[in-house]
Amino acid sequence: MSSAIVLFAHGARDPEWAQPFEKMRGRIQERLPDTPVVLAFLELMEPTLSDAVSRLDEQGTRHVTLIPMFLARGAHLKQDLPRLIGHIQAEHPALTLHLSPAIGEVETILQQLSDWICGEHQAHQ
Amino acid sequence: MSSAIVLFAHGARDPEWAQPFEKMRGRIQERLPDTPVVLAFLELMEPTLSDAVSRLDEQGTRHVTLIPMFLARGAHLKQDLPRLIGHIQAEHPALTLHLSPAIGEVETILQQLSDWICGEHQAHQ
Repeated sequence: MSSAIVLFAHGARDPEWAQPFEKMRGRIQERLPDTPVVLAFLELMEPTLSDAVSRLDEQGTRHVTLIPMFLARGAHLKQDLPRLIGHIQAEHPALTLHLSPAIGEVETILQQLSDWICGEHQAHQ
Repeated sequence: MSSAIVLFAHGARDPEWAQPFEKMRGRIQERLPDTPVVLAFLELMEPTLSDAVSRLDEQGTRHVTLIPMFLARGAHLKQDLPRLIGHIQAEHPALTLHLSPAIGEVETILQQLSDWICGEHQAHQ
């Protein structure tokens, strides 16, 4: 089955804001050269999640792993994203979608962040 | 010199949004029991960065490691935060402050995020 990864980020007015997400996209794409890896944004940047998924569907994608590039779950992940996913599933009924947790809910990331923060403090105090 | 860590996050209307940051604060506090580790927010949650730093100053803190809990640098980190830091340094001239990069600019975090995303995709496709 043809599958893809969508990194879904908030978006911002400043184009430089997207750089870490572009960098991550490129890094994942290198590791999974046969899997489309794309960015999508909630607001202020393009493409929207709906546009990104439509493009993937046209290219034959049948499964999407949707990674919310958010540290924590607030209204964007609890209300906006489920609404968007509802529209997408209505428009692309053949597509399956796995929604991952927010970054700050992932144990290995929390651990790495804690390590880094302790290191930052010890290096600079 | 007495030093502290401030985790500076955006803030949200939903109180549950703060949970990953509370969890990280607790985890770092456990590892550094003699170092005050506190949360502060840009908006919608309390305390503000200014209030958090004032409290630390009253408690005798002389150095703050300031960790922006943001994935990327947009207007919040390029404009809002420097303005807040300017006010804080004017009010607390004896305090030194080290400002860390955004989370998405840290190589080890990017690596961990990429590993996790590849794993999520492979587990669920």
